[in-house]
Amino acid sequence: MAKVSIVMGSDSDMPVMSKAADVLEELGIEYEMTIISAHREPDVFFEYAKTAKDRGVKVIIAGAGMAAHLPGMCAAIFPLPVIGIPMHTKSLGGRDSLYSIVQMPSGIPVATVAIDGAKNASLLAAKILATSDDALLDKLIAYSENLKKEVEAKDARLKEVGYKNY
Amino acid sequence: MAKVSIVMGSDSDMPVMSKAADVLEELGIEYEMTIISAHREPDVFFEYAKTAKDRGVKVIIAGAGMAAHLPGMCAAIFPLPVIGIPMHTKSLGGRDSLYSIVQMPSGIPVATVAIDGAKNASLLAAKILATSDDALLDKLIAYSENLKKEVEAKDARLKEVGYKNY
Amino acid sequence: MAKVSIVMGSDSDMPVMSKAADVLEELGIEYEMTIISAHREPDVFFEYAKTAKDRGVKVIIAGAGMAAHLPGMCAAIFPLPVIGIPMHTKSLGGRDSLYSIVQMPSGIPVATVAIDGAKNASLLAAKILATSDDALLDKLIAYSENLKKEVEAKDARLKEVGYKNY
Amino acid sequence: MAKVSIVMGSDSDMPVMSKAADVLEELGIEYEMTIISAHREPDVFFEYAKTAKDRGVKVIIAGAGMAAHLPGMCAAIFPLPVIGIPMHTKSLGGRDSLYSIVQMPSGIPVATVAIDGAKNASLLAAKILATSDDALLDKLIAYSENLKKEVEAKDARLKEVGYKNY
Amino acid sequence: MAKVSIVMGSDSDMPVMSKAADVLEELGIEYEMTIISAHREPDVFFEYAKTAKDRGVKVIIAGAGMAAHLPGMCAAIFPLPVIGIPMHTKSLGGRDSLYSIVQMPSGIPVATVAIDGAKNASLLAAKILATSDDALLDKLIAYSENLKKEVEAKDARLKEVGYKNY
Amino acid sequence: MAKVSIVMGSDSDMPVMSKAADVLEELGIEYEMTIISAHREPDVFFEYAKTAKDRGVKVIIAGAGMAAHLPGMCAAIFPLPVIGIPMHTKSLGGRDSLYSIVQMPSGIPVATVAIDGAKNASLLAAKILATSDDALLDKLIAYSENLKKEVEAKDARLKEVGYKNY
Amino acid sequence: MAKVSIVMGSDSDMPVMSKAADVLEELGIEYEMTIISAHREPDVFFEYAKTAKDRGVKVIIAGAGMAAHLPGMCAAIFPLPVIGIPMHTKSLGGRDSLYSIVQMPSGIPVATVAIDGAKNASLLAAKILATSDDALLDKLIAYSENLKKEVEAKDARLKEVGYKNY
Amino acid sequence: MAKVSIVMGSDSDMPVMSKAADVLEELGIEYEMTIISAHREPDVFFEYAKTAKDRGVKVIIAGAGMAAHLPGMCAAIFPLPVIGIPMHTKSLGGRDSLYSIVQMPSGIPVATVAIDGAKNASLLAAKILATSDDALLDKLIAYSENLKKEVEAKDARLKEVGYKNY
Repeated sequence: MAKVSIVMGSDSDMPVMSKAADVLEELGIEYEMTIISAHREPDVFFEYAKTAKDRGVKVIIAGAGMAAHLPGMCAAIFPLPVIGIPMHTKSLGGRDSLYSIVQMPSGIPVATVAIDGAKNASLLAAKILATSDDALLDKLIAYSENLKKEVEAKDARLKEVGYKNY
Repeated sequence: MAKVSIVMGSDSDMPVMSKAADVLEELGIEYEMTIISAHREPDVFFEYAKTAKDRGVKVIIAGAGMAAHLPGMCAAIFPLPVIGIPMHTKSLGGRDSLYSIVQMPSGIPVATVAIDGAKNASLLAAKILATSDDALLDKLIAYSENLKKEVEAKDARLKEVGYKNY
Repeated sequence: MAKVSIVMGSDSDMPVMSKAADVLEELGIEYEMTIISAHREPDVFFEYAKTAKDRGVKVIIAGAGMAAHLPGMCAAIFPLPVIGIPMHTKSLGGRDSLYSIVQMPSGIPVATVAIDGAKNASLLAAKILATSDDALLDKLIAYSENLKKEVEAKDARLKEVGYKNY
Repeated sequence: MAKVSIVMGSDSDMPVMSKAADVLEELGIEYEMTIISAHREPDVFFEYAKTAKDRGVKVIIAGAGMAAHLPGMCAAIFPLPVIGIPMHTKSLGGRDSLYSIVQMPSGIPVATVAIDGAKNASLLAAKILATSDDALLDKLIAYSENLKKEVEAKDARLKEVGYKNY
Repeated sequence: MAKVSIVMGSDSDMPVMSKAADVLEELGIEYEMTIISAHREPDVFFEYAKTAKDRGVKVIIAGAGMAAHLPGMCAAIFPLPVIGIPMHTKSLGGRDSLYSIVQMPSGIPVATVAIDGAKNASLLAAKILATSDDALLDKLIAYSENLKKEVEAKDARLKEVGYKNY
Repeated sequence: MAKVSIVMGSDSDMPVMSKAADVLEELGIEYEMTIISAHREPDVFFEYAKTAKDRGVKVIIAGAGMAAHLPGMCAAIFPLPVIGIPMHTKSLGGRDSLYSIVQMPSGIPVATVAIDGAKNASLLAAKILATSDDALLDKLIAYSENLKKEVEAKDARLKEVGYKNY
Repeated sequence: MAKVSIVMGSDSDMPVMSKAADVLEELGIEYEMTIISAHREPDVFFEYAKTAKDRGVKVIIAGAGMAAHLPGMCAAIFPLPVIGIPMHTKSLGGRDSLYSIVQMPSGIPVATVAIDGAKNASLLAAKILATSDDALLDKLIAYSENLKKEVEAKDARLKEVGYKNY
Repeated sequence: MAKVSIVMGSDSDMPVMSKAADVLEELGIEYEMTIISAHREPDVFFEYAKTAKDRGVKVIIAGAGMAAHLPGMCAAIFPLPVIGIPMHTKSLGGRDSLYSIVQMPSGIPVATVAIDGAKNASLLAAKILATSDDALLDKLIAYSENLKKEVEAKDARLKEVGYKNY
């Protein structure tokens, strides 16, 4: 049963959103992945969002660009946490997506991450699940340890070869 | 039977939105006015948007601020023109509202007017109705003539009293 | 007799504006298409805008970039709806075009769509005409149904092949 | 034992942050509230962030303005969810706070809410806790129902008195 | 015979535009001042712009706010220099006015000054006239000398009384 | 004797600035062209700006990018008109250059044109000289006529071949 | 002999710049304070900047608003560190000042602090002097300790009285 | 013993940061270079920043992108000058990095240079050291002389070959 539902409004968001799936797979978290448009198929979308809780979904990760309504509309219907990923856009660099996702009115929060920040969206979903799952918390702590080691390895290499040969 | 439906997500938008109603009254266009939130009562909102056409509504004017989803969600459901009014906001000056309303994805247009541009929203609605209503078109042409006369009167006064006494 | 007039200030806008024409052709709406510059040939422009209504034009779609005056000047002269398309620009990403088109003063609305949003401009024009044309409204509803099916097909494919093979 | 820790870098943020506490009180969620500066007392801050998990904290809500480092530095140390509230600022309207909080690098997510969005920060914290607490989820659903009723009451009043007397 | 024509689209711009007139009076330059709207009375505007050169006007100073088309449309018709003053605006701070005035297409320059920079607009007009008027150039050099003396006097006072008593 | 002095702070601005020279050559206006840096050689720059008037220069055209001080510093020293061209920049798109050039304090105007607007800078310089040179004014009117004919030719071609073959 | 020279282009900057002087007084650092305009009295300015080093000045703190050239022009002439303070502005919030100060070309750095950040400018000047002055470094460390104690006292008060009575 | 410590949060910043090292080498200033992440290894980072002064470091140069906390966190711990380099970013062009670095709260200054301004960061570090090192000051003056000569050579070439052959 999927605990996290990844949803995007268009398959043009797939190159970014697939990174969210990668992280969930790496952490062994069950998820579903759906292309659904709040604008082009509002009734399908409503059904999706209304039934998510009963399908066992604990967190929705929604990516959207431009007048990015998908995360906010999920949050209007789904009672548990919704994480929004603003997509980079050609003309406004993703400011349009970011403002449309983060500036939600009082009562309907969307947990917003960086523009194109799909990896962080999944890590945040994992942290949310980890508030009641110690095994997952341990995995996340190990994940962070790994990040640390990667930086240390890079610094060691820099110290060894010098910046001109890096 | 209302031809124009004015809708806003919060009564804090009333000082701006009431100017939209003023213009419709001045032009003698039947309208309805509703406070409805796509975020706080999505089912009520859906019902409203789905039934609008059968109630005889030809144009929806939707005002919204911040992550302003209301106009776009109207346009996702209502098949006729939707006009969006971005509300001025304290922190981002209304850029958030503007981007959330104007940057709609392909397939779902929202006719966007200026930030806090409620008067123009109603004039645009009237122009839309006037594409098949010559009497209304005559009223609009008279309305424009009036705007012209107001400017001419101001210029005449400037010429008369000089800028220091204007 | 053209019901929609597509106008652009420069042929450099053609790659975007041609998409507006494509949609009108698809929907079977008669249109004319003109390159005209309010800045470089103001008298030609005035003549164009003043005679449009008597030529039978119901909606003007005007695309312009940078200090994009064309849509606003159309709206100053033509009494029926004017739809403005802000062109993407290299330095300001189209913010200059967007602000110049959407921030019209009270009395002279321009129905603004997204930056480079030519497709939506034509859909909006069609919706405007559909307020008094049920056959066109049916075409628009069918058009929307198609958009919905396209999304559903993409989602079905995702479910079938998985995101890694999408 | 506090499940949510509200932290701010300066007591000038108190008028906003107190709304976060109000919501937690209304929902009956235990919390602690602290003024701590990652910049002015980094060692005190580190101690706070390192010990939070063992004190039983499940979610940190951090508010900060300008070069708002507090939420991000919490997320660097505390392994469970961190929610960031960007403070409105005089010169940049809170864009500085927003970018400093939301644009976190890969690996260290901060769940960002709207500028000055303290109420939503606490609702998001509650939703996070509700992923493993059905009683809290019921409270949140009731809370949403209330929001809906408030909008309906406003609309009923508008219908009754008209917009001129609203 | 007026050498400079000051024009504004709305009398709400008068508090700023009157400063342009003040400077011209101080420098003894003949001018005319007009309220005219390119949007609300395009034919009156065209007549004004077309006849300006034959009235003896050498420079037009045009102030406008929001989708500020007035300066650019003057430049499209009047063959001599046009100076544009972008008005401060509530929502976008004058960025809309600035972009609409400065981002003119190739072939139609507008000499743009700072937001609300009416004083500088007149000084620029005077400098333009001074390219063929040595007496005016001498006045401008004296004007600059005066600015210098004012700064020197302020600095002398600071040195005398100290910053705490300044 | 050069009437117009084209100056740039760096030879990286040459691809843009050369267009300014092209226009002056086309209009037969004598000019000089100089690479000079107010930052890297302030004394050389001062000498250049102080002696320009006595060399017969009537207008300076200064191009600069980023913290673009060159036009403003010219205007601080040279008593006749200074035209500023903001250079496009990679990170801020030229907003930095634009603000640094257009937002001059009271007393020291810079006539600012569009980002990378070198052609318009020279046309503006020509218009300034044309305030006392009827032959040049005739050339400028002919230049504008040409622009008009170019647009008309493009429109004629569109009418002939249709947009799909344009 | 003054080690730090505080300079501003206009006495309208005094309310901000006086805070820079306050900090230097508190730390016992000798300073001079001058109102000087690079735009209105370029020769006086040049003399000031050229002689600063020989007067014993080690650091210049320059505040400026809008097209803020003063810090950059100081850095073009004075060979030791220049600290720039961007002034808040009404229309652009200080973005204009910030970009004009921070975006200096290669070779001419200005150490930029926050918009209106006069206090930090002086602390930075003190840190610069402290690289060769251990007694001053001790004072700075004590200053930081004090900041820490102030935050701790605020937190203690919050813990004592609760946020509702804070 | 390194007097300057160059630090970056990620090796993706190396192409920019290496230019900072180049300048220090050219000026013969001893430095160390480190990859360290305040987010991914906060304890390692703390140790680094706390011990820097005792290692003899007089200035830290920290480069960071997006929610760029590294320079500010250095400044929170290291008592001597910290220079921050905002990295260019794809979506926001480096505005995010710039605001996160320059908008530091009172008490914790970061000397900010231009976006990607690594060269200037090192020149600023050298100027700081030169406040107590006359030999280094002489080198810096020579460095500036060289910049001047480069511009003069370019101008001479332009004068010789003309802009068309430049």
